[in-house]
Amino acid sequence: MNTRTAHWIHLALATSLAGTAAAATPTPPHSRAMADILAASPASDWRELDPDNTLYMDLPTGRVVIEMAPLYSPAHVANIKILAHEHYFDGLAIIRSQDNYVAQWGDPSEDVEGAVARPLGSAKPTLPAEFTVPISPKMPFTKLPDGDLYAPEVGFSNGFPVGRDRKAGQAWLTHCYGAVGVGRGDDPGSGNGASLYAITGHAPRHLDRNIAVVGRVVQGMELLSTLPRGTGPLGFYEKPEQQLPITSVKLASDVPAEQRTRLQVLRTDSATFAAVAEARRNRHDDWYVAPAGHIELCNVPIPVRAAPTK
Amino acid sequence: MNTRTAHWIHLALATSLAGTAAAATPTPPHSRAMADILAASPASDWRELDPDNTLYMDLPTGRVVIEMAPLYSPAHVANIKILAHEHYFDGLAIIRSQDNYVAQWGDPSEDVEGAVARPLGSAKPTLPAEFTVPISPKMPFTKLPDGDLYAPEVGFSNGFPVGRDRKAGQAWLTHCYGAVGVGRGDDPGSGNGASLYAITGHAPRHLDRNIAVVGRVVQGMELLSTLPRGTGPLGFYEKPEQQLPITSVKLASDVPAEQRTRLQVLRTDSATFAAVAEARRNRHDDWYVAPAGHIELCNVPIPVRAAPTK
Repeated sequence: MNTRTAHWIHLALATSLAGTAAAATPTPPHSRAMADILAASPASDWRELDPDNTLYMDLPTGRVVIEMAPLYSPAHVANIKILAHEHYFDGLAIIRSQDNYVAQWGDPSEDVEGAVARPLGSAKPTLPAEFTVPISPKMPFTKLPDGDLYAPEVGFSNGFPVGRDRKAGQAWLTHCYGAVGVGRGDDPGSGNGASLYAITGHAPRHLDRNIAVVGRVVQGMELLSTLPRGTGPLGFYEKPEQQLPITSVKLASDVPAEQRTRLQVLRTDSATFAAVAEARRNRHDDWYVAPAGHIELCNVPIPVRAAPTK
Repeated sequence: MNTRTAHWIHLALATSLAGTAAAATPTPPHSRAMADILAASPASDWRELDPDNTLYMDLPTGRVVIEMAPLYSPAHVANIKILAHEHYFDGLAIIRSQDNYVAQWGDPSEDVEGAVARPLGSAKPTLPAEFTVPISPKMPFTKLPDGDLYAPEVGFSNGFPVGRDRKAGQAWLTHCYGAVGVGRGDDPGSGNGASLYAITGHAPRHLDRNIAVVGRVVQGMELLSTLPRGTGPLGFYEKPEQQLPITSVKLASDVPAEQRTRLQVLRTDSATFAAVAEARRNRHDDWYVAPAGHIELCNVPIPVRAAPTK
């Protein structure tokens, strides 16, 4: 029955998958407008992921692809690359899934009294607190004109949602859905990249400037967001058998070219990206009666697609 | 090892479970400050759910408890109560799970060409568009002073996050995590409550004022948020066997008292709630180096707890 079938379809047109792609079909079009805009985009508005800054976390359920942002957390990204290169994460586990917040992974033995933690190898045991970094001329910045509650200004830089404080001369990656960060203790310099988390719920933007964000999940987010929630305090799994083992975490450049997941991200300084944001800011399909007129940073999708075969 | 164990613990202190409770332990304390505030709260700052405006959606995996807000969508809530009372939803299914967006449930036959839809019984087939309602003196409103990108003002009303436009004299429920709304077609008056959705990702606030929100999930949200994502367009399940059957949806007042899930919600006009919001706006535990100073509507938790046994 057409009108009632329309219930399903039309709620759906209003989707807000904030730029993370489903495994099967990276960045499916979420509205007629966005589909049209992406279909009309020139190839030059897309960039391929840099294998040297891309992580593959292979789980029994599939692959999570993480793009890292070395401009924003250089020491942390460098350490994580060492850890991945030396197979630190292989055989470790996802140890925590807290509803509307995070999935977290690392060495389960660190939560067990008396257990021996896996050695960090060549990686550093602690790192400087890269919660913000100095604004650099090397950092592109496409400002979002809509304002923000958490930062003096926000926008996009090389495909990442960022905040900036020009007075203080600082920039930082924000905690939108899919953001990947580095767990730490009370000491701001206690993180090292061996314990990582991904945001699986409404953006906890109060974490911005308090912890090092290293990148974002660009594919496979649903493998983390659908994990059973841990029933222990803070969403930790109470039993080892509830944890999901990590098959491996590899740097894409350590993987043979033919085994890589070739993805392209829409350039966030392109006209196509500006059109996407505008289409989401003011939706003009027949379903909407009241276009919002504004869009919040974490609601702007950063489209990802499979790299076209040559 | 203490310092490294602290990685897990301290990221966790920063949680932002926006007021929806896990099944086992409604509103676990998410920070020392919040735990202290709630522990010190007087009993009078809590109210029990009204069984006549509470839905139990029983799934094979557990119970989802939905508090409805009849002040904000009276015709839709009334229709849903009729549907539940007449067992309309029993044996229907969750038909859609789209990552970082919604879970949706209703009659699967509506998506099948030529299938006969379940009759709506005494419920109305269409309803007026209650996307906003006139501000009424009966509506309490505790303003959030932090501002908002989507509404002239936002705050809390009887335990619900709401937006208001005083110039237009309108108020509406917002699409924070856990919000429950009514699917509709292009015609704004085409919804009837037989197709419902819950927000399972970052708040799609652009839906505000475009669709009728009827309430929010106060317990069991994780049963919806962890559903496998549908691999069809827009997160629809492609095969009937992928859908999760709904055992029943009942109005709590139709359930014998001893089978009810007795929950209390913190009064959003209480001093305790104001203290919770402030504790989240500016976090002062040792972990934080940069308290945000502001908080966004959907990041303010609305605490829920099991009703104390008398």
